[in-house]
Formats: sequence, C-alpha cells, structure tokens
Amino acid sequence: LILKQVKLAFVGFGTVAQGCARQLVRNASYLEQEYGFRYKVVAITDTVKGSIQNNQRGVDLPEALKLAEKGKLEGGGLKGKSGLSSIETIKTSDVDIIIEATWTNLKDGEPGLSHIVTALQSGKDVATSNKGPIALAYEKLTQLAKSKRRYLRFESTVMSGTPLFNMHEFGLQGAKIKSLRGILNGTTNYILTEMAEGKSYGDVLKRAQELGYAEVDPTGDVEAYDPTAKITILANAFMDAEVNYTDVEREGITGISIEDITKAAQDSKRIKLIASASQDESGHFNVSVKPALVPNTDILAHVDGVMNALNISMDVQPDITIIGPGAGGDSAGYGLLSDILAIHRLRVLREK
Amino acid sequence: LILKQVKLAFVGFGTVAQGCARQLVRNASYLEQEYGFRYKVVAITDTVKGSIQNNQRGVDLPEALKLAEKGKLEGGGLKGKSGLSSIETIKTSDVDIIIEATWTNLKDGEPGLSHIVTALQSGKDVATSNKGPIALAYEKLTQLAKSKRRYLRFESTVMSGTPLFNMHEFGLQGAKIKSLRGILNGTTNYILTEMAEGKSYGDVLKRAQELGYAEVDPTGDVEAYDPTAKITILANAFMDAEVNYTDVEREGITGISIEDITKAAQDSKRIKLIASASQDESGHFNVSVKPALVPNTDILAHVDGVMNALNISMDVQPDITIIGPGAGGDSAGYGLLSDILAIHRLRVLREK
Repeated sequence: LILKQVKLAFVGFGTVAQGCARQLVRNASYLEQEYGFRYKVVAITDTVKGSIQNNQRGVDLPEALKLAEKGKLEGGGLKGKSGLSSIETIKTSDVDIIIEATWTNLKDGEPGLSHIVTALQSGKDVATSNKGPIALAYEKLTQLAKSKRRYLRFESTVMSGTPLFNMHEFGLQGAKIKSLRGILNGTTNYILTEMAEGKSYGDVLKRAQELGYAEVDPTGDVEAYDPTAKITILANAFMDAEVNYTDVEREGITGISIEDITKAAQDSKRIKLIASASQDESGHFNVSVKPALVPNTDILAHVDGVMNALNISMDVQPDITIIGPGAGGDSAGYGLLSDILAIHRLRVLREK
Repeated sequence: LILKQVKLAFVGFGTVAQGCARQLVRNASYLEQEYGFRYKVVAITDTVKGSIQNNQRGVDLPEALKLAEKGKLEGGGLKGKSGLSSIETIKTSDVDIIIEATWTNLKDGEPGLSHIVTALQSGKDVATSNKGPIALAYEKLTQLAKSKRRYLRFESTVMSGTPLFNMHEFGLQGAKIKSLRGILNGTTNYILTEMAEGKSYGDVLKRAQELGYAEVDPTGDVEAYDPTAKITILANAFMDAEVNYTDVEREGITGISIEDITKAAQDSKRIKLIASASQDESGHFNVSVKPALVPNTDILAHVDGVMNALNISMDVQPDITIIGPGAGGDSAGYGLLSDILAIHRLRVLREK
C-alpha cells in the first residue's frame, strides 16, 4: 500500500462540509493505514464564515472546525491568506480535489455550478453534495469532466451517504436499469409517517421544523422540488435519460389529508411520496414525483420517518432495494468522504 | 474507451454458470460499447457434462449453452479438446479469469478450493459463486491472491447478485463496519413467511421443494448451515473478523412452531432467521445465526418470501439496509458477471 497525499479544498463550510471534515480528522490514521490516503487541506472558503488558504503548510483542520462552530474562520489565528472569494480560492489553490458543499439552488445552480465548472476547467477533481448543479446541468458537467479527464462525484446529492452512485458504478456493472422507484425526501416521509399516526399536517410540520427536519420555508420539501431534483439526477446517471429537471412531473404532499391516509390504511395501503423513472416501449422516459398508494406488501410501505429508499429494477436479476438516511450532516459528510476516497482509489489505480 | 479482450473459462457449468453465460451472450454488444469488454470463452469444464477447451479459437458459447441444457458438452460438435479434468483445464487454459461455479461443500471446500488455489497460483484472476472455499478458507485465499497480485471476487456467494462486496469495497470506503444483521437464506425465510400465514412447517417445506426453493435434503437450509457460511464470509470480508465457520453459533428453524409465530404476531413481531456479526468492547466478535423476534418497526420484519436483506451499521452514518434476491440462477449468474466486469475495470485502470 503506497501512502499518497491528497490536497483538498472546501468550498462551502456548512453542516455537510463540517461533517466530512470531522470524519477526516477523527479517522485520519485509519484512512492512512487502510487506504494509503493522507490529506492536506489547503483552503476553506465560505460566504458567511470567510476564507483561509495556505497552499504550502495547509490549514489546521481541527482548529478550523472550532472556529466554524463560532461562525467565523477569519481572524481566529489560522495561518494563511484570507479574504479570497470562492472562485479565487478554486483557481489559486494548489489542490487535487475541490469539495463543493455550498447550498442547493434549483433556479440556476449558482454559485455551485460556477464552482464546479471552474474547478474542472482548472484541472481539479470535484466531490460535491450540491444537488443544484447536478440536477440542472448533469450532461454539461459530466461532459466537461470527461473532456478534462477529471472526476466529478456526487454521492451525497441523493440519499446522503447511502451508497447509490458508487454502488451503481461499481456494483451494478453490466446491468441495464429498467426503472427506479423510491422515497427520496426525508421531511415529507416523516410528515406522512406521523400523519398516519393521526396527527394533523400542520402539527407535524411544526414538529418537523422544531426537530430541524423541515426548513422555515418548507416549500422545497412539501412541494417536492427536492425529490424532483434527486430523481432527475438518478434518471440521468443510472439510465442516461437526459431528462430536464423542469420537465419532471411534480406533485407535493400539501393536498393529502388524514382522511386520505386513513382510507388507505383500511385498504392495507400507505400513502408515500414516490419518485419514479422508467422508460416505455418507444424509448420515452417517464419521470415523476407524486403521492402514491403503496400496498403493505411493498417494502417501500415500511420505510418510515426520515429514512429514504430506492428500488432498482434491472434486466439481469430481480429488483434490489437500498434503504438509508435521507439527510443529516454526518451522513452527507460521509457521502463526500466516500467520493474523495473513490477519486483517490481511481487516481492510485491509474498511476500504477 | 479502449476495447479489450478478456479470456474466460468456466469451471462448473450448472445453473449459476449458465445464468452468467446467457447474460454474456445476450448483452455482448452492450458490454463492448459500455465497458470496452469483449470476451472469449476458452474452456468449459463440468464434472457431469464433460469438458471442452479451445485456447486458439475459443468455445462457441451459445452452442455450449444448448448442449448443456441437454446435459452433455462433449461429443456435440463443439470444436476443441475434450476430456480434460477441471484442474488440467485451469492449468492449461490460456485464460485471464477463471469462473469457479462448482457446488458448495462446507466440509472441506472441495473441489472448489483446489480450483481457486490452482487458478491463483497459475496467475489467473478468479470470480466464484462457491460459498465453500470462501467461508472455509477466506484468509488463506485472500492472502494467496494478494501475494500473486491477482483478483479473487465472490459477489454471488452472499445474496446472489445483490451488490454487497462490490458495494462495500467501492461504496463504503472510509466507514468502519460496527455490526451486520440480516436475513441470508431464502428457503427458511420463505418457510417462516408461509408459516406466518398459518401453514404447517411440513406442508410449507413440501411446497418449497416443489418450487425448487428447498432441496430434497433441506438440512443445509433449515439447520442454517447455508446462512452460517454467508455470515462467516461477511464478517471476514467486512469486519476483518478472522472468524471460523465452525465457530459460528448456529440454530436452525426446525424448532419453530406455528404457535411461536402466532404469539409473536400478537406482540407485533415476526420470527426471522437472523444472521448477525458484531464486535464487543474487548474486540471479541460475536457471530451467530438463530431465529429471533423482530419487531414490526424493524424493516427486516417485512422482508418476506425468498428475499434476503442485510443491515449494515457503521461508525460514520446511520444504518443502511440492502434488500435483494437470495438465490436464483439469473441472479447468482449476474453476481459472477459483475465480478468479471469489476476485474476487467480494475485491470484496465491498472494498465492505463
């Protein structure tokens, strides 16, 4: 096992990036021993918390994590250059992998989209947790990565750190995906699960907001924009569907009443917000997110609370289903880490 | 994408190997386009059906499949050398990957164990569906593969073609596995599921034998030898447990009555044959297979019929669960194909 140093830069240093950073710190020696992976963080940049860059000596990551908790990276004693914009950081950092973890914007993908484009164009690999750019510009970004012979990985964009893209790429080779069907949003699944216990939509939403499962403006979840972005990414990455996010049929859960749910239960069914993608005989892709009646004999009926699930149907064998966390800083942070390690592994193999 | 020819030999040509072969034939052009994978089968050997070897021109695989269905490979017009033993075939074939798919023997692993050792020692990569050698000699075989710088892959030994080992190796990098818990035998899960509907053990077993889910001598399944082999493989491959198959605590389902199952149902529980592996504080591994009461709030309670499932608990994020087929020629055949493609990919990356 050859030990190799990988230079990293965080662009966006919120909950997810910090989750990844904590795992890098905590498991540093394990990652060296097991994967020959040694890292140096050369820059961290965040719109709110400021930026720090130290190409030569690297940035003290445990210290940066402490400062980030207090909300400010600059002026806290970290050695290096501060005040750089995210784009300047990407361009001027001596780095192998850019970890893009800014917020998701489903209007135009910015600023993540420009971050990823800039990183790939300047010859850097990218691991991102940002759904916006991948949902809106999958074709453009994967083509750019290919033309630059760089890696672009996005495990945590769907079902957080649950292995979907890495599983598909390495574990489902030779299988043609016929259809996908899943529960891809934790907030709405939590709400529907609680409503099945007899609680009202309003009460449950309020509780979800208190628990941090739902945002103050819950539109992205309850109107299904979030799972729509995710099924778009899956359809494109797993089925080469070349589908546009804005073309996906979308219906949220705000029209669901307790009466609907009670009636479903009487028929041994559950109401779930189901994202699906399939290809019909003529080659046309049907991609949608909408509430559906799921019979209790279907395993998806039993995926409750904030858990997510994806059922994959293929040509070579019966379906498989993978169930895992749909959100959370640790989980999405792990998704980033698994992408970083996948890039590391591919780089090492290529150099052998 | 560079097209590369991979030379294959089948050692054992029963249901699973034929399932793999059919997929190779059916998806040949897809595999070339998508993965740059072109294959040539140079030999097929089977204790019952005979053997054929043609290093130069290759063996006509569609024709071999037709002959295999009639029970005999030799004397049917296939061009090449016949009459070689499996060991002679492995030694004298000009081959990249040996596909070892002989029957599982949990006493001493033979003849699969000798096949794999011979293949690795003569510099060939191995994809195997044979649980025996991997359950009984994991450490020895993986060390041998390592010392010879060869690949040994065994996706289909547990949960057939459901990606477990490929998912773990490429999708769960950087995660330390804390515990495993699953339903790893389709026959017993089918029996327990049907018994929960009020049918007697005897009736259900008879039906399972008619459907081909259970063998004439059902001991391997109902006394839990089969899932014991599987959890041994998982504990060693996922957790470096270095546990011996014979040391695993094992209890089958023959002691379970309909009354037990009814009583469990009254408590909102199911009886499932649960295989598990975990490490305690002192570093000791607890590995067992035994019937357990599983509450309905646990997703494993809803994995019914011949389906299998594995729950993976790790240090970096909440649990994930993967559900998929536990048996079947197509599924296990796909597991072999996915191993072959994984080896192909690793070889190509190494040569770049």
